[in-house]
Amino acid sequence: MLLTHPLPTLPIRHRHHHHHRRRQRLPAIRSLDAAQPFDYESQASTLLSSQSKLKIAVVGFGNFGQFLSRAFSAQGHSVLAHSRTDHSAAAESLGATFFRDPHDLCEQHPDVVLLSTSILSLASVLRSLPLTSLRRDTLFVDVLSVKEFPKNLLLRELPPHFDLLCTHPMFGPESGRDGWAGLPFVYDKVRILDTPSRISRCARFLDIFIKEGCRMVEMSCQEHDENAAEIQFLTHTVGRWLAKLDLKSTPINTKGYEMLLELVENTCKDSFELYNGLFMYNKNSTETLDKLDGAFGDLRRELFGGLHDVVRKQLF
Amino acid sequence: MLLTHPLPTLPIRHRHHHHHRRRQRLPAIRSLDAAQPFDYESQASTLLSSQSKLKIAVVGFGNFGQFLSRAFSAQGHSVLAHSRTDHSAAAESLGATFFRDPHDLCEQHPDVVLLSTSILSLASVLRSLPLTSLRRDTLFVDVLSVKEFPKNLLLRELPPHFDLLCTHPMFGPESGRDGWAGLPFVYDKVRILDTPSRISRCARFLDIFIKEGCRMVEMSCQEHDENAAEIQFLTHTVGRWLAKLDLKSTPINTKGYEMLLELVENTCKDSFELYNGLFMYNKNSTETLDKLDGAFGDLRRELFGGLHDVVRKQLF
Repeated sequence: MLLTHPLPTLPIRHRHHHHHRRRQRLPAIRSLDAAQPFDYESQASTLLSSQSKLKIAVVGFGNFGQFLSRAFSAQGHSVLAHSRTDHSAAAESLGATFFRDPHDLCEQHPDVVLLSTSILSLASVLRSLPLTSLRRDTLFVDVLSVKEFPKNLLLRELPPHFDLLCTHPMFGPESGRDGWAGLPFVYDKVRILDTPSRISRCARFLDIFIKEGCRMVEMSCQEHDENAAEIQFLTHTVGRWLAKLDLKSTPINTKGYEMLLELVENTCKDSFELYNGLFMYNKNSTETLDKLDGAFGDLRRELFGGLHDVVRKQLF
Repeated sequence: MLLTHPLPTLPIRHRHHHHHRRRQRLPAIRSLDAAQPFDYESQASTLLSSQSKLKIAVVGFGNFGQFLSRAFSAQGHSVLAHSRTDHSAAAESLGATFFRDPHDLCEQHPDVVLLSTSILSLASVLRSLPLTSLRRDTLFVDVLSVKEFPKNLLLRELPPHFDLLCTHPMFGPESGRDGWAGLPFVYDKVRILDTPSRISRCARFLDIFIKEGCRMVEMSCQEHDENAAEIQFLTHTVGRWLAKLDLKSTPINTKGYEMLLELVENTCKDSFELYNGLFMYNKNSTETLDKLDGAFGDLRRELFGGLHDVVRKQLF
């Protein structure tokens, strides 16, 4: 019964819940042996606690994968790291186990396979995983910065017995450096099969971000991409574009200028591969780029038009 | 003696200074009449205090002129406001007197004439002032966002008996809303004639910004303009350019995107005239604009180049 009942998300609620059930079901035992209900509770509590902990395989253990894994580990989940690059030292420092071979990783039977690769390499990394070594009820989660592309790819490549949750934590090692409170976490439950254990596991995974204080936003992959082209691709474009000017801090920085410097710094700590992926795999970004280009042209025309007006006034 | 001695900038220091001098000069009086030194000190202190207060004519009483005048009034200086537009109600609410006619203003013999016009209208406003009605030792101060242009204009238009201080408070009603502490105030003592009263008056004017906690930066007008093209014109350009995209706040704003929204809001509260002036009267801004344009082109080429590489890989 405990194994199939959907668990509430907060451990403090589990415990109360449990108390309640125990009182309803085992009233007679209390009088027979005072120690027994306590032992039972203690055992059940340990069981619940170990159940609420997930075994998470993080596939793609770069900057972002490590950043997320730090929170997974801190919340007591076990992290199995895998990457084409050898990140075993980083894994060890985070209390994670590094698996060089994807077969060894999959044979560990993780509850969750978290895909934290670059957008550009998702397909090839996914194809390198021996999916038949995984348990048939594994939950796949992606954290890519575009959503329609991985959704379609995963639906096509993964057998239908795997669950699929598409997410986008809209922050990174820079913006989430001092904690994740208030930062948006977008998710779309693309395919969570209707059994209590699968529903509960998905909830427990999302609970990691709830516990960190994220602003949880349930949104379709399509809607995410439409918004993100305006928000994320635009922000990264401005950051990368200004980075090319090699701006310097001066004794007379204004507040606005300091914002620009901060934007450049934050943007350029992410890889160019991420930025390029935002462009390439979000069909809305070309439109954003065209709008930016048009607006810049308009502004130039306003400035130079005004200049000619003044010159004309001075000449005639 | 008191009238010509250069006054230290902080009133608390005046008082100590004065104590010290009294003890040196009037030791005998103390035994003759206990009240007398106190009266003397009290009178001198009032005199000092009234002297440290300036009568400031603010010419151009728009958004920025009013913003500065609020601090002048709060520090006990008297503000005489003058503008081509009728801002008498705003003046009254700030405890300032509004003068519609520039003759009436000049006949008040202000200590300081602060020019807070737009860059574009400085020349015509200056020519509308009856300079001969002012005292010959008046201090002219400008607060324009470019510095070489007003410096040259004022040196050419103002008789040499007037003092001239070119300044640029590098903040405005938005960035300085919660106080001016730590915000940069740039100044260049272009022409302060070498008499103690003129030197002291310039110091007392600068002291207003020191008291508000500004970061005081003494810098030549030329150096200011070289820096400001990179800092201020660039920031305003990004803000005005993004404003044309009509960006919306969404449930999935990232921190970087919120910075952009804030930048747009702050930039567009300033007039287009200010922005246009930054462009037109700073010869370095065309270069900044060209650099921006070039960098945007480079970025586009990188993105589209990458796109073609991927397409080629998929085709061959």
